[in-house]
Amino acid sequence: MDVSQPAVLSAADSLALRYGAAAPPAGPWNEHISLLLSHRSVRGYRQDALPAGTLETLIAAAQSAATSSNLQTWSVIVVSDPDKRAALAKVAANQKHIEQCPLFLVWVADLSRNQRLGAEEGLTLEVIPYQETFLVAAIDAALAAQNATVAAESLGLSCVYIGALRNNPPEVARIVGLPPGAFGVFGMCVGYASAVGATEVKPRLPQDVVIHYEVYDSTGESAHRKAYDGLLESFSARHGMAMDTWTKRVIHRMGKLAALSGRERMVAALNAMGFGLK
Amino acid sequence: MDVSQPAVLSAADSLALRYGAAAPPAGPWNEHISLLLSHRSVRGYRQDALPAGTLETLIAAAQSAATSSNLQTWSVIVVSDPDKRAALAKVAANQKHIEQCPLFLVWVADLSRNQRLGAEEGLTLEVIPYQETFLVAAIDAALAAQNATVAAESLGLSCVYIGALRNNPPEVARIVGLPPGAFGVFGMCVGYASAVGATEVKPRLPQDVVIHYEVYDSTGESAHRKAYDGLLESFSARHGMAMDTWTKRVIHRMGKLAALSGRERMVAALNAMGFGLK
Repeated sequence: MDVSQPAVLSAADSLALRYGAAAPPAGPWNEHISLLLSHRSVRGYRQDALPAGTLETLIAAAQSAATSSNLQTWSVIVVSDPDKRAALAKVAANQKHIEQCPLFLVWVADLSRNQRLGAEEGLTLEVIPYQETFLVAAIDAALAAQNATVAAESLGLSCVYIGALRNNPPEVARIVGLPPGAFGVFGMCVGYASAVGATEVKPRLPQDVVIHYEVYDSTGESAHRKAYDGLLESFSARHGMAMDTWTKRVIHRMGKLAALSGRERMVAALNAMGFGLK
Repeated sequence: MDVSQPAVLSAADSLALRYGAAAPPAGPWNEHISLLLSHRSVRGYRQDALPAGTLETLIAAAQSAATSSNLQTWSVIVVSDPDKRAALAKVAANQKHIEQCPLFLVWVADLSRNQRLGAEEGLTLEVIPYQETFLVAAIDAALAAQNATVAAESLGLSCVYIGALRNNPPEVARIVGLPPGAFGVFGMCVGYASAVGATEVKPRLPQDVVIHYEVYDSTGESAHRKAYDGLLESFSARHGMAMDTWTKRVIHRMGKLAALSGRERMVAALNAMGFGLK
């Protein structure tokens, strides 16, 4: 049985899974939107190899995303070597799926290519050592990676972002040989979900909490949060998860500095890797 | 005639538009991937209003994107007021489409909601004032916005990201009333492309330049860049654009600090807006 092929749900069913009782009425809809709504992060993969050409299709989708001023400040590293996979998993708090998945990608915020262009043309690119330019590269990589995710899911594949590669950026750079000005902003597992990896759509905050009209307005947010806590508590109970409400999860993840697992040293790491963040 | 409805192209035709002669062979493909490949940023819109419920559908798609540890650190402001639109356009170097498009969104990297949660629970969230946490919020917003873009384009709408809102983040915060810990990371125009706004698919760098295997390897990059310069020069000539090669465009955008249009002051702006970037 192919557990990775999501059924195409109606608008109402898709919205109910994503929002519970807080779902908005169904608006304009099509099969592309159903696909987007069906996203689940998957952390368990079958060993099955991907069809030939899958990587190139995913990257064509990724390169079709918008990129700031067409600067194209990202790259991607395909990591297959088991030793490198193991080393990357070690950086990322031993997430086993990094070693299991058939395709593992390191998405790179990459200013080095444009820097090489400048050097070859005999120029110093003045905008490189700025927070803005680092941010452009990180956002470019994110837009590209999200398109790759959508493309993968459309092919019956599943993905998960691995933000924990940022626990130790210099070590990731060493493992995949990044030049100065290149930063592994996140990893991504791609493959067919195993029976144990296939999960439910995770509910999100009500739209009223994230959409604001004309000006930011957090009125009603506390009440919405309590309702969402209940929704996520039911979801957690069905999955045997400990941090049952959203409130508890946020506090667990953001309350104590230890939760950053080394990422509190990112500025020093980025500066050492050739980024300026002024 | 509805110029905004892209024809569904074959894999080979889609790849040829995106890469020219450097196109990879067609791999696994479907109508979702054709849609992704057909992306064009559009800077001219008809006045036509969007169908009822469009915003809610786009945001449902956005909220279905992955979000780091389910922290959901983004918000979106819908700006309709003409005075606010004009003020935002002024920040963004007078891009007229900000005032013309039927739907304008400010995508917000938003740590303020989680901070309010902590405050209501009587806690200080220790991870908030870190570069890592700002980056998580910016990436969360980018993944969400890209899903909204895909959803919009699937409905025959077009979009363009407006990074130039970062020219003056405190002014954007003032216009849309952002609380401390919320940052307008980019804007987005959404609407039906006008005849003048409808554009060609823009060619990208060859896949060989952005994909690396096991380790980063820039061998051959210079030759690929020269070929891509030629491809983009033809594209530019067809569109009457001045900066004709990729090399010239990169140098124009990255060579001199003046091109940052105020974004060189982002660190000070972010710190003043309640972000810590340590």
